[in-house]
Amino acid sequence: MAPSIDEALAAIKFDRDGLVPAIAQQHDTGEILMVAWMNREAVRTTLVERRACYWSRSRGTLWRKGETSGQLQLLYEMRLDCDGDTVLLLVDQTGVACHTGRRNCFFRAWREDGWTIIAEPRIDPKQLYPQAAENSIAAADTSNGPGPWPARPG
Amino acid sequence: MAPSIDEALAAIKFDRDGLVPAIAQQHDTGEILMVAWMNREAVRTTLVERRACYWSRSRGTLWRKGETSGQLQLLYEMRLDCDGDTVLLLVDQTGVACHTGRRNCFFRAWREDGWTIIAEPRIDPKQLYPQAAENSIAAADTSNGPGPWPARPG
Repeated sequence: MAPSIDEALAAIKFDRDGLVPAIAQQHDTGEILMVAWMNREAVRTTLVERRACYWSRSRGTLWRKGETSGQLQLLYEMRLDCDGDTVLLLVDQTGVACHTGRRNCFFRAWREDGWTIIAEPRIDPKQLYPQAAENSIAAADTSNGPGPWPARPG
Repeated sequence: MAPSIDEALAAIKFDRDGLVPAIAQQHDTGEILMVAWMNREAVRTTLVERRACYWSRSRGTLWRKGETSGQLQLLYEMRLDCDGDTVLLLVDQTGVACHTGRRNCFFRAWREDGWTIIAEPRIDPKQLYPQAAENSIAAADTSNGPGPWPARPG
């Protein structure tokens, strides 16, 4: 009999907001794609649907990665660290993980000249989020970063 | 002129507790070693000393990784994600990263039989933390996880 998802949840230590950080890593290359947050429902949905689902702190909603952009993360395996307070998702990323159109979110490196952009977008964010582009200024969610990128709908 | 560390700090979004999660990744293999937390001082110390330094939430002190165990993380490069709220440390890990004596902390995988241990310790934790072993029960810090491992002094 398959173990129940309640058993998976019982080992995870959610913080005072009911959240746990989750790292998405491309399962075959080891590339760290992004970090987001999960609540219990996000963990459950990820395990049931076998695709990464997070909790959007800025929107206060469940966020099926790729629901807007089509850039899904198919789940390969979920792992948990020794303290139970960080989740690692080994995934197969469709397209790009970052809402800026880059393959991964960690594209700033601290080098001799300060923060240096080390990767370029592969896709125009307007193409990933056509609706956000239409509403551009109105839809901008400054809690998502310094911009000028659109809000991150998924 | 080398950029100032204040400039590095200015781009990082620390949370309401003044902390930011930091992933340590082995720079050449892509292995995710561990996740810990950094405050401003930990970021500054990491960049100045070129070795990973974290903030221990359980002990409320700066925590130079390896200061007790000798299992240092030499800094290869610091990166920052699009939102500025997660730090990635590319490091060269001496020995093991996990206080259980395993190479990395993500040794539990959710599989058909539930949470499955997928890596064994390479070093006896008693060897990593001889003092903690002496004080064993008294020193145990339950905030560090389900045990039976010793508290995590570094």
